[in-house]
Amino acid sequence: METWDAIRARRNVRAYEDRPIPEKDLDQILEAARRAPSAGNRQHWDFVVTTDKGQLEQMGEVWQGARHLPGAAAGILLVANQEEEERGAIINNYDLGQATYAIMVAAADLGIGSGHSSVGDQDLARSIFGIPEGHVPSYMIGLGYPADRPLRPLVKPNRRDFDDVIHRGHW
Amino acid sequence: METWDAIRARRNVRAYEDRPIPEKDLDQILEAARRAPSAGNRQHWDFVVTTDKGQLEQMGEVWQGARHLPGAAAGILLVANQEEEERGAIINNYDLGQATYAIMVAAADLGIGSGHSSVGDQDLARSIFGIPEGHVPSYMIGLGYPADRPLRPLVKPNRRDFDDVIHRGHW
Repeated sequence: METWDAIRARRNVRAYEDRPIPEKDLDQILEAARRAPSAGNRQHWDFVVTTDKGQLEQMGEVWQGARHLPGAAAGILLVANQEEEERGAIINNYDLGQATYAIMVAAADLGIGSGHSSVGDQDLARSIFGIPEGHVPSYMIGLGYPADRPLRPLVKPNRRDFDDVIHRGHW
Repeated sequence: METWDAIRARRNVRAYEDRPIPEKDLDQILEAARRAPSAGNRQHWDFVVTTDKGQLEQMGEVWQGARHLPGAAAGILLVANQEEEERGAIINNYDLGQATYAIMVAAADLGIGSGHSSVGDQDLARSIFGIPEGHVPSYMIGLGYPADRPLRPLVKPNRRDFDDVIHRGHW
């Protein structure tokens, strides 16, 4: 798909067809995450992927905003390094945001919908995937083919108006 | 450009041709930012764009990692809402990361390189663009046509190995 179409077609998808994602496509989505930029290219992140129904069910219990995970074809847990200072944690979250959008636009390019979630229950997230100390389960993304309608460029996205959010030269 | 090519062609570009970005293309890049997802679609962000040489020069003084801004054809200041609690600030940074990647991949699609920077001197960033209280200058992005070589898909990106950063089903 053309990039500009993928950018406009990406939307928050939380209900999925019962249809697996080809392994090759899932790897391409994860490769997009690996290639994302990070502050000073430090890559203080890891990505845990699962297509296991049991693990996806458990991910649905990690946070109230994760109820779409059990119905997803695949789930990704985004993990940040534990940092000693708040500034480091802030930057890790910025970097995970970059990787998140890379995942989402790479998925949209393949007709695959995505929906993200915070991590509420840290202990549960750790136990599902065996995340070691020194690493922080931070966000989750559900992936799958949209149950309602295929991804197509949105003409009117539900966003603040362009002239409200974009300032030219001065606030 | 195909999405997968744009994802692989995006790289950190900090030296630019002395050549303006067509206004239409700059608006498309900003539209990608506007359309980026955010936590609960809250859009606690604003984007200030400039092509003014004087402002770009000043942006170069905001942080040691911003020395590419004076040579850029355009600069974007990413601004987050001021939040009362740290959790809100963390999520705003995650969301700004998503918008950052949207900007970068939309730019790559148009053959335009990008390089981001933190904001060090808050007061200076505020004064350049008249950012009001209640809003936090957070990151900057320089945009322009690469001075060295055009954007082409990278075969071997300088990243941790796929099998090091991607975990399947378990850490």
